[in-house]
Amino acid sequence: MKKFLTLLIILCVSAGLMSAQDANLRKVSSPDGNVELSFNLKDGHIPVYSLDYKGKPVVGESHLGFKLQGSGMYDWFEISDTATREIDETWNPVWGEESQIRNHCNEMTVTLRQTSSNRFMKICFRVFDDGMGLRYEFPDQKSMAYFVITDELTEFAMTGDHTAWWIPGDYDTQEYDYTRSRLSEIRGLLSSAISDNLSQTIFSETGVQTSLQMKTDDGIYINLHEAALVNYPAMHLLLDDKNMVFKAHLTPDPNGDLAYMQSPCTTPWRTVIVSDDARDILASRITLNLNEPCKIEDTSWIKPCKYMGVWWEMIAGRCEWSYTWDLNSTHIDTDDLTKVKPHGRHGATTANVKKYIDYASANGFDGVLVEGWNVGWEDWFGHMKDYVFDFVTPYPDFDLEEIEKYAAEKGVKMIMHHETSASVRNYERHMEQAYQFMNDHGYPAVKSGYVGNIIPKGNNHYNQWMINHYLYAVTEAAKHKIMVNAHEAVRPTGLCRTWPNLIGNESARGTEYQAFGGSKPFHVSVLPFTRLIGGPMDYTPGIFETDISKVNPNNKSHANCTLANQLGIYVVMSSPLQMAADLPENYDRFPEAFQFIKDVAIDWEESRYLEAEPGEYITVARKAKGTGDWFVGNVTGEKNHRSSIVFDFLEPGVEYVATVYSDTPESNCFTNTYAHSIRQYRCTSKSKFVQDAVEGGGYAISFRKATPADKKIKKLK
Amino acid sequence: MKKFLTLLIILCVSAGLMSAQDANLRKVSSPDGNVELSFNLKDGHIPVYSLDYKGKPVVGESHLGFKLQGSGMYDWFEISDTATREIDETWNPVWGEESQIRNHCNEMTVTLRQTSSNRFMKICFRVFDDGMGLRYEFPDQKSMAYFVITDELTEFAMTGDHTAWWIPGDYDTQEYDYTRSRLSEIRGLLSSAISDNLSQTIFSETGVQTSLQMKTDDGIYINLHEAALVNYPAMHLLLDDKNMVFKAHLTPDPNGDLAYMQSPCTTPWRTVIVSDDARDILASRITLNLNEPCKIEDTSWIKPCKYMGVWWEMIAGRCEWSYTWDLNSTHIDTDDLTKVKPHGRHGATTANVKKYIDYASANGFDGVLVEGWNVGWEDWFGHMKDYVFDFVTPYPDFDLEEIEKYAAEKGVKMIMHHETSASVRNYERHMEQAYQFMNDHGYPAVKSGYVGNIIPKGNNHYNQWMINHYLYAVTEAAKHKIMVNAHEAVRPTGLCRTWPNLIGNESARGTEYQAFGGSKPFHVSVLPFTRLIGGPMDYTPGIFETDISKVNPNNKSHANCTLANQLGIYVVMSSPLQMAADLPENYDRFPEAFQFIKDVAIDWEESRYLEAEPGEYITVARKAKGTGDWFVGNVTGEKNHRSSIVFDFLEPGVEYVATVYSDTPESNCFTNTYAHSIRQYRCTSKSKFVQDAVEGGGYAISFRKATPADKKIKKLK
Repeated sequence: MKKFLTLLIILCVSAGLMSAQDANLRKVSSPDGNVELSFNLKDGHIPVYSLDYKGKPVVGESHLGFKLQGSGMYDWFEISDTATREIDETWNPVWGEESQIRNHCNEMTVTLRQTSSNRFMKICFRVFDDGMGLRYEFPDQKSMAYFVITDELTEFAMTGDHTAWWIPGDYDTQEYDYTRSRLSEIRGLLSSAISDNLSQTIFSETGVQTSLQMKTDDGIYINLHEAALVNYPAMHLLLDDKNMVFKAHLTPDPNGDLAYMQSPCTTPWRTVIVSDDARDILASRITLNLNEPCKIEDTSWIKPCKYMGVWWEMIAGRCEWSYTWDLNSTHIDTDDLTKVKPHGRHGATTANVKKYIDYASANGFDGVLVEGWNVGWEDWFGHMKDYVFDFVTPYPDFDLEEIEKYAAEKGVKMIMHHETSASVRNYERHMEQAYQFMNDHGYPAVKSGYVGNIIPKGNNHYNQWMINHYLYAVTEAAKHKIMVNAHEAVRPTGLCRTWPNLIGNESARGTEYQAFGGSKPFHVSVLPFTRLIGGPMDYTPGIFETDISKVNPNNKSHANCTLANQLGIYVVMSSPLQMAADLPENYDRFPEAFQFIKDVAIDWEESRYLEAEPGEYITVARKAKGTGDWFVGNVTGEKNHRSSIVFDFLEPGVEYVATVYSDTPESNCFTNTYAHSIRQYRCTSKSKFVQDAVEGGGYAISFRKATPADKKIKKLK
Repeated sequence: MKKFLTLLIILCVSAGLMSAQDANLRKVSSPDGNVELSFNLKDGHIPVYSLDYKGKPVVGESHLGFKLQGSGMYDWFEISDTATREIDETWNPVWGEESQIRNHCNEMTVTLRQTSSNRFMKICFRVFDDGMGLRYEFPDQKSMAYFVITDELTEFAMTGDHTAWWIPGDYDTQEYDYTRSRLSEIRGLLSSAISDNLSQTIFSETGVQTSLQMKTDDGIYINLHEAALVNYPAMHLLLDDKNMVFKAHLTPDPNGDLAYMQSPCTTPWRTVIVSDDARDILASRITLNLNEPCKIEDTSWIKPCKYMGVWWEMIAGRCEWSYTWDLNSTHIDTDDLTKVKPHGRHGATTANVKKYIDYASANGFDGVLVEGWNVGWEDWFGHMKDYVFDFVTPYPDFDLEEIEKYAAEKGVKMIMHHETSASVRNYERHMEQAYQFMNDHGYPAVKSGYVGNIIPKGNNHYNQWMINHYLYAVTEAAKHKIMVNAHEAVRPTGLCRTWPNLIGNESARGTEYQAFGGSKPFHVSVLPFTRLIGGPMDYTPGIFETDISKVNPNNKSHANCTLANQLGIYVVMSSPLQMAADLPENYDRFPEAFQFIKDVAIDWEESRYLEAEPGEYITVARKAKGTGDWFVGNVTGEKNHRSSIVFDFLEPGVEYVATVYSDTPESNCFTNTYAHSIRQYRCTSKSKFVQDAVEGGGYAISFRKATPADKKIKKLK
């Protein structure tokens, strides 16, 4: 009898445990059923989730929750409510890769009550056909009106030792070359993956940045990032490389705290994009869809812009941002620069700017950026100088009014430059005046910069304080109808949906590094899978002269890319702000190739991802907004690639002329970058096209409808 | 022969050393010869100074110099130049204790060359009849264009175990009661000298604040402070209590650095005020004289102001700054306060404000301060909330336009209140708009506050970052012709000479603490020797009802002062901004005593310091600017005091009527604060006056010229 009772008790307890497990299990699937999210309370009280793709686990059991100052929100939960709904809506971005975007997912919101404290936290999951987003929501409640997050416990448990394309986790910079390795190899490779930066703060041997692209051994592509990063620290990923579990690692404030929160509030979305086809990663709109709709009522003043700039000659070191070498340091309110000796190497002179205005106007560019136009550049770098720029005072040899007038006559918009030297208080103190100055002088867009360690001291580029600032700069700009392209700011998380005047960001290793020692040839074949998941990049492509010593004899750098690769970027790395970064003199040497940069669109009706493999190749076809012209771009990464594509995106039954700009068999991104081939074919939507591209190479194609005069052009099968 | 040579060598070396000592010795004396400053290079290369007063050492051999990031500027110096000059000039302050101030001193500037680095540093000494100031000057030089100070080594070597009136050194607050003790007793007493504050950072067991008042056993009064604190961290004093040597201890930034410097630049002045008569400490104008002349061209809008305020009832806890208890926390951009339930205890209602306007108008006050008028007070305290106030949105029950109109009709100026909750970025973001709002609505002055830990986090109230902010707030206000009275900001250092729109500061334990548990009775007998050395204080005196439970039954505090003491403060603690802090209902109970507050001037032609002993008593006579009326004030400290003074400041041969408001023999600052005597005497410049005052007591006298109708008034001998 006693035995029977014991057995009965055991059975009951087991059943109780099992039914408790079952009772707390919540599942939600994507509209197509391929992606399935499971939520549960481990041991009956600890929140966990997992994610399956086509029946296979992609994210294993992963913890959720927070450590808070004085308490925790990671255990002793019960489910007090579960709500599900389908979201299916289509919206129109102001600019981007297509003119309309469908937001289609199943949402499940689990409301958790912490029984030990009677506090509430919701976890909202949105499951799409190509992945999922989850975020925490804290309802308005007296016992959690304010709280301080000291650790976010969100995990992403990987199911194996995947291949990853990663850069070191850093609180201050993303300007690193990517490394491809197994997850287990990150620890051993991390120190060699770090290159110098004026401001950099590595936090762990296994810390990496988002967006992180991975591939499993059975061919599943997984991408981890975040969406809608607002007033919260940026998330890095800390790898437990015994168990292959990533944990959210937030950028701390100077006191070591992560986030100061006030309910009701939400965290950013933590996103997992998943597919067995790498092209789906590029085509995913999860990041944008998880952001709020546009908050700018009249967006008519937001206009994509193709531009040139007084820039590359400074980057290469031929010219200077500064004006004089006479001063030991500058005092911008009191220096009389008309009394000092100019060093004669200043780039932003009226004459040089006019040359660029002429060239931009003659070649159909919208804008000209000028860096180094304003006083303060003599000692802006590396001194943590507080009052470093005033953003409104030109150098004596930059005739602002004359240039304003000249540009207007030539139909070219001037692009403002606000380097802040990371002196953020100083920038905010001058921001209103600086934006008004732009309004007064007809500058519709600003490139801002945050080079160096952040002032206020103790802050890092990616902590809550700075995240708040970057968006402040964008929303204040919107009041002035100003577009923002922020460099060295946090990497984007789709906020351009909400604030489409955020037309660009750097937040990765840009083309400038080709003049700072060169980047890896596969760099631009990785960026669309990583940095671009959050939004467009002002990558500043178009470098035809790859031997930088031709620009500045003292600079021995080499741009590790072929000419055709540079053209392919304009299509592959879609951006509403696209620069032709090289010097006019270099474009004049390759006028036929330059034609593609002049022709290519920068805002799109539709995009087709034809081929993709991270770090190896990406081929994209895009249809220009307005004209309906199609363009194809390819960038090729760490090994040669043969494209075999069909032009099935073209209008059926219509004959087109395709102008192909490609590598040649002789092209080499190190030793023979100039070699390229330009040729034309007649073609239709049934035409098959095969094209070889070399490591660091690529190709670009522009299409136009054929005319009878094109009969002599060879026809593609 | 060998012995002789040895001797010769010894003699030569000694002579060499001695002559090197002599060669580097530099002396400069005060115009009257009483104060003598000696500078020398110890061991031939280490800069030191000492100070004598009337032939006796006051500051012994004390080091000078700095530790810098990566190097030092404290040794291996040679003197490359010594320049002296006499300064004798008279200037007119916009407001203050007299209408003209003589700046008379001998200046010696020693230029030092660091032989090991070929860098230059100057030390400038200015020696006055009542003390000296020294500062470091860094000339424009390539090798020191930028440098980071990691320690300031300036010492003040005391010559004995002096008596000091001190508060604990703290990076965030000065709101402490003073302790009188021997220097050697500080370590043992420090922890008991600390009272709670929302933001406080004690740094050492022997750290104390400036201005520090001391007295030697042979009756010399020594005061240590600083002047012209601009873009540099505030100085505390760290005591080596074995040797009685104070060392400068600067407030660090979040990285632990002290100051980021760019040459040419200077440090603030380090001041030593010295005399064998305590009255000279109060009369010293060294702090003002070491500041730059006024930088505001048109000062006609800067007007001293006597004011009342919707304030004490909140301080005492009868009313609230906030409007509702309905919200878990406030979101000032989105809350609709017309939809919440008011708690009914809001102080800043239109009706209450009008009552104060009526009372101020009827009693000749210039202004009315209203705290708690703007949204955000529900959760402003202790949350380190970033966007805590917007400074422009009134509560629903504060009818801004109506009040603006009403005050104008009644001839009363409204005084703005900007509590920042120490969220400094938020304040700077809103500052321009907030100041413009004041211009638009006729507010000529603002009381600002910095309660709580500083945001940006990791900063302290007194570090370089914040010192920069406080002055920024003043200079931006000057552009709007706005006067500033900053509470919880750094203690003043005479900057009101340069920026006379800085009409007030708190920066010490103010009257509010009488409602937070009470202050020591001798507090106001110490403050003029310490806090007021740098500039006036918005002490907010005039508390007639000392039993705070009469204002709010739940508040058991007691104001430890007699009614006559409160009146004496108005003269002793000169300020261009003087509040009558108590409630109208309490003034109505003592209309005759209130008359003194109505009569007393707040800006002065001339001041005479009749009696003074730190912590014991201070008696001052002042002549009102404009009217020429004389007033006398006395505050009495830790024991009863009998004043014996002569009215020799009065115009000779003229009969006056003196109205005396004094303690009575029954007065007691704890048990019988209301007891006071008001009586009149006829008197002349030859009249002798004897008056007793009790601990925490005092008296006040107003003078007017006698008329024939005054014959019946008793005549003073």
